[in-house]
Amino acid sequence: MQFEKYHKEIDKELSKIKLNNNPKELYDPIRYVLKMKSKRVRPILAILAYKLLNRNWKGIIKPCLSLELFHNFTLIHDDIMDKAPIRRGKRTIHEKWNKNIGILSGDLLMILAYNMLSDLPKNMLSKTIMRFNEVSIKVCEGQQLDMNYQKKSHINEKQYLEMIRLKTATLLGLSLELGGYLAKMNLNEVKTLYKIGELFGIGFQLSDDLLDVYGNKNFGKKIGGDILENKKTFLSVKAYELSEKEDKENLEYWKKNNNSSKEKIEKTTEIFNKLNLKKITEKKIKLFFDLAYKKLDSLEIKKLYKEELKNYLNLLFERKI
Amino acid sequence: MQFEKYHKEIDKELSKIKLNNNPKELYDPIRYVLKMKSKRVRPILAILAYKLLNRNWKGIIKPCLSLELFHNFTLIHDDIMDKAPIRRGKRTIHEKWNKNIGILSGDLLMILAYNMLSDLPKNMLSKTIMRFNEVSIKVCEGQQLDMNYQKKSHINEKQYLEMIRLKTATLLGLSLELGGYLAKMNLNEVKTLYKIGELFGIGFQLSDDLLDVYGNKNFGKKIGGDILENKKTFLSVKAYELSEKEDKENLEYWKKNNNSSKEKIEKTTEIFNKLNLKKITEKKIKLFFDLAYKKLDSLEIKKLYKEELKNYLNLLFERKI
Repeated sequence: MQFEKYHKEIDKELSKIKLNNNPKELYDPIRYVLKMKSKRVRPILAILAYKLLNRNWKGIIKPCLSLELFHNFTLIHDDIMDKAPIRRGKRTIHEKWNKNIGILSGDLLMILAYNMLSDLPKNMLSKTIMRFNEVSIKVCEGQQLDMNYQKKSHINEKQYLEMIRLKTATLLGLSLELGGYLAKMNLNEVKTLYKIGELFGIGFQLSDDLLDVYGNKNFGKKIGGDILENKKTFLSVKAYELSEKEDKENLEYWKKNNNSSKEKIEKTTEIFNKLNLKKITEKKIKLFFDLAYKKLDSLEIKKLYKEELKNYLNLLFERKI
Repeated sequence: MQFEKYHKEIDKELSKIKLNNNPKELYDPIRYVLKMKSKRVRPILAILAYKLLNRNWKGIIKPCLSLELFHNFTLIHDDIMDKAPIRRGKRTIHEKWNKNIGILSGDLLMILAYNMLSDLPKNMLSKTIMRFNEVSIKVCEGQQLDMNYQKKSHINEKQYLEMIRLKTATLLGLSLELGGYLAKMNLNEVKTLYKIGELFGIGFQLSDDLLDVYGNKNFGKKIGGDILENKKTFLSVKAYELSEKEDKENLEYWKKNNNSSKEKIEKTTEIFNKLNLKKITEKKIKLFFDLAYKKLDSLEIKKLYKEELKNYLNLLFERKI
């Protein structure tokens, strides 16, 4: 509940975005996406970073929405590319309408993301756009790597971590960075904030991978979904690296076998257990989180002010938000 | 040859854009698109508008490239939506690679378009981004209308003109506007330049429609291509409006008949002839061009300086460039 106020203000500001009514086929999907249940993680992170230095956060919501709009644009296009039928419990745009409408309304959302930045103070706009572009390019690179890797039989841990860094973590980095930049922190602090978001983002994605196999019902996703889809995750990558002979053969066997979902998940998880992947993944997650928190501690800002951001990151990580 | 120097400088500046090498699947299509034979109409228009007031045009090429990159982004995504196999005589991205790569490299091109703007002088960036966004939104709306209209059996002239205004003419308007704005023309002049580009753009698209039926070999496109694809054009829209009984029935018959390409084009053209559509379309084109030139004449700028822009528009219209 503590963070509800931010969510509310963000939704209020989102609802202020003026969208035309026509053509309906273009704007209905945008309205549909923006009304979906969403945690609004990225703008909230930006607000909390801003609040490390400046308490008067309501004035900066509009530029922070660019992060949310950009994120939603990537989801729409990624869902087309991944042929995903469901997102946040609702039908994806290309499923509910069609692919063309998904492409075009995604394009429009990206333009709207840039629109949110356009009335930043003149002396901040140029730098913000530049950073926004740099990170957007990385997100595209990450998505391309993700597609490439899905086609490969195997990738290594380094490749996997770099892919999720680009695809997911950079935008979380930018979220904290933008908040700090808008609060006029110095260059070093802003860079540190980016890094905190990036490290947290990698850890968060790894914990997503972990919860797919070892999560409980709170997670909200179907357990074993990634296994069923033969998705590259930290666990599947490590499983290939660490397994030998029979286990490796069995993993390959179940990868190709789509006859029994239940058995596929069970047998794969058994091998994951044997390889101690829960512990290994937890250790890796802790590594990234510790690095992130260490960086946060290193920021020369009153400890008290950091508590709110820390709380939020914790709740997010524990999927309590 | 007169405009070759602009083309060269534009290509030179385009080649300076730093593109990563990896992932190859993301950057190869971008390089492929940017190396395609292209008239570079939009940046050249911007340069010529700039030169109405300021001769030192080489410094403004970079922001003008945003127009070219944005245009190319729209072509890539439009070609996916229209299932077009060929563009500028080469295979389209989604044909040569695949749809996903088309979506993603298009996205990246749009980001690169914004990148070209980011080092504009601070006091100009905000307004430029805002206008760029406004026009980009219109282009998306136009593309959506185009898709909607392709599914409709009939639309009226007003709908058709509004669609091509949004989809094609607004970006030509922005091209002239950007040049004028960068040359620090006043608000009224800048607005007039936008309008000139928009009017010219509508006329140009109408002449494209005309040349599909009544063009000669110089046109470079297959005669009757639009008829074969049952595309909505100014002529097909007017044909439905003006035809009666038997002619209307025959038009409908040939629309549904895809057995003989040659006959389909011949018979449809016969009815177009009977309805005097060549004259009617020429008259409409003249209307838009006259309006555009009148606005250009109204600009309080030395007549001499306008000649170059006028020449270019003329050559463009006559497909001599």
